[in-house]
Amino acid sequence: MTSSRSDEWPRRVAILGVGLLGGSVGMAIKRRCPQTELVGYNRTKAKRDLALKQGAVDRTADSIEAACDGADVVVVASLVDKIADLVIAAAQAAGPDCLITDVGSTKASIVEDVSRSELAKSRFLAAHPIAGSEQTGVLNASAALFDQKIIVLTPADDADSELTARAKRFWSLTGGKIVCLSPQDHDAYLAAVSHVPHLVSAAVSRLLPADAKSLVGSGWRDITRVAAGDPDLWTAICRENRQAIRCELERLIGDVQQLCQLLASEDDEGLHHWLSEAKVNKDQTNEPAA
Amino acid sequence: MTSSRSDEWPRRVAILGVGLLGGSVGMAIKRRCPQTELVGYNRTKAKRDLALKQGAVDRTADSIEAACDGADVVVVASLVDKIADLVIAAAQAAGPDCLITDVGSTKASIVEDVSRSELAKSRFLAAHPIAGSEQTGVLNASAALFDQKIIVLTPADDADSELTARAKRFWSLTGGKIVCLSPQDHDAYLAAVSHVPHLVSAAVSRLLPADAKSLVGSGWRDITRVAAGDPDLWTAICRENRQAIRCELERLIGDVQQLCQLLASEDDEGLHHWLSEAKVNKDQTNEPAA
Repeated sequence: MTSSRSDEWPRRVAILGVGLLGGSVGMAIKRRCPQTELVGYNRTKAKRDLALKQGAVDRTADSIEAACDGADVVVVASLVDKIADLVIAAAQAAGPDCLITDVGSTKASIVEDVSRSELAKSRFLAAHPIAGSEQTGVLNASAALFDQKIIVLTPADDADSELTARAKRFWSLTGGKIVCLSPQDHDAYLAAVSHVPHLVSAAVSRLLPADAKSLVGSGWRDITRVAAGDPDLWTAICRENRQAIRCELERLIGDVQQLCQLLASEDDEGLHHWLSEAKVNKDQTNEPAA
Repeated sequence: MTSSRSDEWPRRVAILGVGLLGGSVGMAIKRRCPQTELVGYNRTKAKRDLALKQGAVDRTADSIEAACDGADVVVVASLVDKIADLVIAAAQAAGPDCLITDVGSTKASIVEDVSRSELAKSRFLAAHPIAGSEQTGVLNASAALFDQKIIVLTPADDADSELTARAKRFWSLTGGKIVCLSPQDHDAYLAAVSHVPHLVSAAVSRLLPADAKSLVGSGWRDITRVAAGDPDLWTAICRENRQAIRCELERLIGDVQQLCQLLASEDDEGLHHWLSEAKVNKDQTNEPAA
């Protein structure tokens, strides 16, 4: 694995799906490693041309095989329900020393699906950079998107330690901070800190009476910012992390039903305690991350 | 009512409770009407001195009576469950041409409680500037807080039209845009666009697993921004608008239960539709307010 120890590694990075996240990976790597060649692949020529025009990649390829040829790293940055198939396709196209990674917001089903292919499994180290936006597309990509952001790696139980080390090294080049979790723990935590909050934000947006749109204030705007997110993306995330999301949604419904009970029984002391616990949790996240 | 038609109106404004909102009213009025004298009242001397030091008022008074003496306008800016009593006290201290108004986030119970006093009722025009922050206190007050923000006035059915006109004139001086609603419509709408979203934001914060605090991203931070709000303030709001809040919370729970059903039955088309409706509502609030 000399290539992975050289200062010149990675000499070539292929990005499958050059949108907000894929484009930002390219720009972040180029900022740190100007000599690295970035090859982009999107399904449509229009998106490939846009990625090139935005400077997110150095050149584009019109097939997965051509994009992965000779790559040291392949980053799969598609919708979560397409990632496993693309990882398997990339493993067949890339060389034996190639690291394949991804940016998906769900991990367990992707890791499980990839493990159907021994070849893909031996080259794949799953990742989830906790960065993004309600905006999409390479036009919103930025070299700084991952700076100081958490990048969760989810090596399978039997993952090769050298592969894990290479994935840590690659993702560190983007400016992010690496955390390792099991795929299952990742999905349970992310259901609680991201997926269910997103769905609740959407529920708040759905609650808006048609004739009260002019009454929304800055609180409503903040709470619902992510409700403008792409329904395709979030349907795919729900499909891939259905069980953990249902579990956390039930937990949230139970908590809100408890709140209703406090209101119905005019238990203002209990209500104050309920609100104070929320404030403590919120205030603690403003401390430096552990 | 010559004083109300004079260009010099209001010559004197008393602010009962010079915190974030009360202080911002003072600063906004001073920006537009530098000749107006601003008199501040807070219960504690420390808060009165701070209000003066911040330049939110020109001078302070150490009693409600002294503050309201000779005022053309009294602005009551306390917690919502203290407003009605303060309005009644102000009406007894102020002259017959004095407009009394408030900044409370709930309106029906305040208007009803004030109407216990015929004197107070004849001088009070309730208001709710839809502006604020999870921050509190006069240190965060700003002359620009109300610029282009909606100020809801909720005249009672039998409100004097001249009193309503004076309230519109006063609140226009802060830079806000005036909307009139009945107190009951205000409370029902605000439960949907503000109070329940706030409680849901708190529920999202409460859902955070203790060992996942480092995994929160910008979406979680936005959704829970208001969860750092003052529990005293929000307990008071819930107490004053209990019925409408319970009604909207039940509506939200029903919608989230429907979402759970879509997830359980793997109805991804239905889920996509559910998410798309949320996005449409959100995107429509980004258009110029009606």
